[in-house]
Amino acid sequence: MTFQRNDLLGIQDLDPEEITTILDTAESFREISERDIKKVPTLRGKTIILFFHEPSTRTRMSFEIAGKRMSADTFNISASGSSLVKGESLKDTALNLEAMAPDLIIIRHAVPGTPHFLAQCLKTPIVNAGDGAHEHPTQALLDLLTIREHKKSFRDLNVLIVGDISHSRVARSNIFGMNKLGMKVTVAGPPTTIPPFIEKLNVNVTYQYDHLIPDMDIIMMLRVQKERFNQPLFPSMREYSKLFGLTLNRLKNARDDVLIMHPGPINRGVELDPLVADGPFSVILDQVTNGVAVRMAVLYLLCRGTLEQ
Amino acid sequence: MTFQRNDLLGIQDLDPEEITTILDTAESFREISERDIKKVPTLRGKTIILFFHEPSTRTRMSFEIAGKRMSADTFNISASGSSLVKGESLKDTALNLEAMAPDLIIIRHAVPGTPHFLAQCLKTPIVNAGDGAHEHPTQALLDLLTIREHKKSFRDLNVLIVGDISHSRVARSNIFGMNKLGMKVTVAGPPTTIPPFIEKLNVNVTYQYDHLIPDMDIIMMLRVQKERFNQPLFPSMREYSKLFGLTLNRLKNARDDVLIMHPGPINRGVELDPLVADGPFSVILDQVTNGVAVRMAVLYLLCRGTLEQ
Amino acid sequence: MTFQRNDLLGIQDLDPEEITTILDTAESFREISERDIKKVPTLRGKTIILFFHEPSTRTRMSFEIAGKRMSADTFNISASGSSLVKGESLKDTALNLEAMAPDLIIIRHAVPGTPHFLAQCLKTPIVNAGDGAHEHPTQALLDLLTIREHKKSFRDLNVLIVGDISHSRVARSNIFGMNKLGMKVTVAGPPTTIPPFIEKLNVNVTYQYDHLIPDMDIIMMLRVQKERFNQPLFPSMREYSKLFGLTLNRLKNARDDVLIMHPGPINRGVELDPLVADGPFSVILDQVTNGVAVRMAVLYLLCRGTLEQ
Repeated sequence: MTFQRNDLLGIQDLDPEEITTILDTAESFREISERDIKKVPTLRGKTIILFFHEPSTRTRMSFEIAGKRMSADTFNISASGSSLVKGESLKDTALNLEAMAPDLIIIRHAVPGTPHFLAQCLKTPIVNAGDGAHEHPTQALLDLLTIREHKKSFRDLNVLIVGDISHSRVARSNIFGMNKLGMKVTVAGPPTTIPPFIEKLNVNVTYQYDHLIPDMDIIMMLRVQKERFNQPLFPSMREYSKLFGLTLNRLKNARDDVLIMHPGPINRGVELDPLVADGPFSVILDQVTNGVAVRMAVLYLLCRGTLEQ
Repeated sequence: MTFQRNDLLGIQDLDPEEITTILDTAESFREISERDIKKVPTLRGKTIILFFHEPSTRTRMSFEIAGKRMSADTFNISASGSSLVKGESLKDTALNLEAMAPDLIIIRHAVPGTPHFLAQCLKTPIVNAGDGAHEHPTQALLDLLTIREHKKSFRDLNVLIVGDISHSRVARSNIFGMNKLGMKVTVAGPPTTIPPFIEKLNVNVTYQYDHLIPDMDIIMMLRVQKERFNQPLFPSMREYSKLFGLTLNRLKNARDDVLIMHPGPINRGVELDPLVADGPFSVILDQVTNGVAVRMAVLYLLCRGTLEQ
Repeated sequence: MTFQRNDLLGIQDLDPEEITTILDTAESFREISERDIKKVPTLRGKTIILFFHEPSTRTRMSFEIAGKRMSADTFNISASGSSLVKGESLKDTALNLEAMAPDLIIIRHAVPGTPHFLAQCLKTPIVNAGDGAHEHPTQALLDLLTIREHKKSFRDLNVLIVGDISHSRVARSNIFGMNKLGMKVTVAGPPTTIPPFIEKLNVNVTYQYDHLIPDMDIIMMLRVQKERFNQPLFPSMREYSKLFGLTLNRLKNARDDVLIMHPGPINRGVELDPLVADGPFSVILDQVTNGVAVRMAVLYLLCRGTLEQ
């Protein structure tokens, strides 16, 4: 293993070899969740704190399952139950947690850069589970593992990411990772949702994507946050769905082996037609399964777990 | 063991042999909770998800304690912390959970039939922990275990269930189970709370129950939901208590070995006089103790745990 | 070991030998949290319930970490998710919990005396994790352990406790413990926050403390609850901070080995200057670390764990 980092803050920092190390480790752990007894002693006696400031089912559960399947002890703190409501600074809360000798802290926070700030304050390894619209590295890693599972290699794959690119930490982390691994990324969405100068991240931009579908190996649809409709970004859900929603009809010229991905939760009938979400090209539930394996790998690599047991 | 089902959705589906299998298994597990070290490796490496959409102390805790005493890993999701608040469908949430390879999902939901719907969508075993006013099978099973513990046999026992029958999943599951095991069930309550055609479930109906007390082996008082008072169903808490509340005076003609049961939480002084709740006939806390044993049995039978360890 | 109690309700009840037993036990457990594998089997198969009616990060987490590092199973109940919202009495909730055979219940409650009431109702050992403004015994014990770690002996140490003494369970538990161990306690605060007759607890009282700093071995600053400002107790945060806040300037005549303590969470810039909180005299994070060790000791002594494993 050649993973020397103390934290996993984003994909932007990683080099391709590090990404590959995480994916290889994840692949080796995947079968643990297929066993009858889904438990290995790798992280026995390790203390992992999940510090989530935003609601989450799949990410929190996925980390918690990953930790417990490796025999770690996991502890949940939500912002509402924490001292933050008593006016304590985030840094003080974190220093207090560190004084209880955790082996790793997983944080989700609405403010971009929060995990990076904690990583500067603490010696404890920090995992970013989503910081505002900035990064969500384990999501990109599970997406990459799913792609590699189906396509074997990343080199020269064409990927289309569709949705509100500006507000998507999933898009951003994937753009970084896909570029590093040699994929060709195009983003599509309403003009109001494409960040200016995004070309500098080495992506192509389009405002309608039908003509690109025949070339695509992967189409990744982003969740549209309903609360943004009827705001300046989106005229209406109906119009968004008509222009950008992925339907069976739009897929009629797609490759036979195209992969349809979505980070979830899905707005059925908005960005994704149910027939596509549940159809043969969809690998959406594979993504979720791979999420557990990727998080096991990340926890293992950062906690310096012992494999020999 | 002859339990071949994948799910526990209700008592209505079970045949008497299946009920007896669960009760026998529960009985054999009961002593585990009396040990100094309350832990067996039976469900080690099993992932059990508790998915509760309604507040609960005793049922959730009872399942969680049951799981952990058998060395399972348990995971809590509440509706408020879940993706459901982001507009995801229940089916999608469930499919996502399934993709993380749980061995069993326990669900409580206000909508009747929700566990049955999930059982159709998922291969993962589903346990109904209460679906609206429909069924609450583990409650009926723990009630039956408590009755068997004290009465040895079910045959021809007379039971009176008192309260708001229409809205009670506890009453419904018990009526199914008691009938299957040969007990004779009478329900009592204000006329507004007795469902029409309930006789078809093979129960007797009465609107005042004093004259029946001398014949009863078991009197099961239901919790009255205070929020229903001053609605059309109940004129007032005081009137309900006077007409239907179980007092020492009402019990003066009862048998020496009558059992007083209540699923909890009790409204002391409404449906149950504190002197009765805490009196010698009450087996209310035995019910709670048996709840852990019954849930251990259900988790074991559905997770296909290994006893040989 | 000579600890014969069933519960830990307060420091007021303990004799000095009992306090010393807890501190010695805690000291012996402290190194477990410094290991690579932070796990001992001491409390394997024990069921510990955390019943917190007030929000808490550090105390709840500290108990939970303490329990799991000794292999106990821990279960969280908050008031909002519990049957209390359905109108059940606290006693009934507690009796129901007891019927599930826990080995220990940890309770925090806004009403003074609640843990004592539960201890009367239940045979299960009760630990008070804070009852209103009354006692917070494990906080005082971790404070005492921190003092002993740095000062070796308690005899004749001078300690100054600064803040809203009336509303502080931390102050009260510490006053009891420090007196029993031979320390000399002075309290300082605005006159509105010093309880009448507090001298009967064998403490000195002052309304401004600068002249005492040169004599002090320990200065313990209490958290000021911001919601009390602009109430009759405190004219303003600014005035409180000016008169009672601990600054570098105030410390210029302090001893070289003075200890600055705070139970957290800190209001930086109110009761404590950040330069003091993070300065060389501060042992605030040592207190947090010792909190885990003290709680391991309390759980061990009350659960009658087995050391021989």
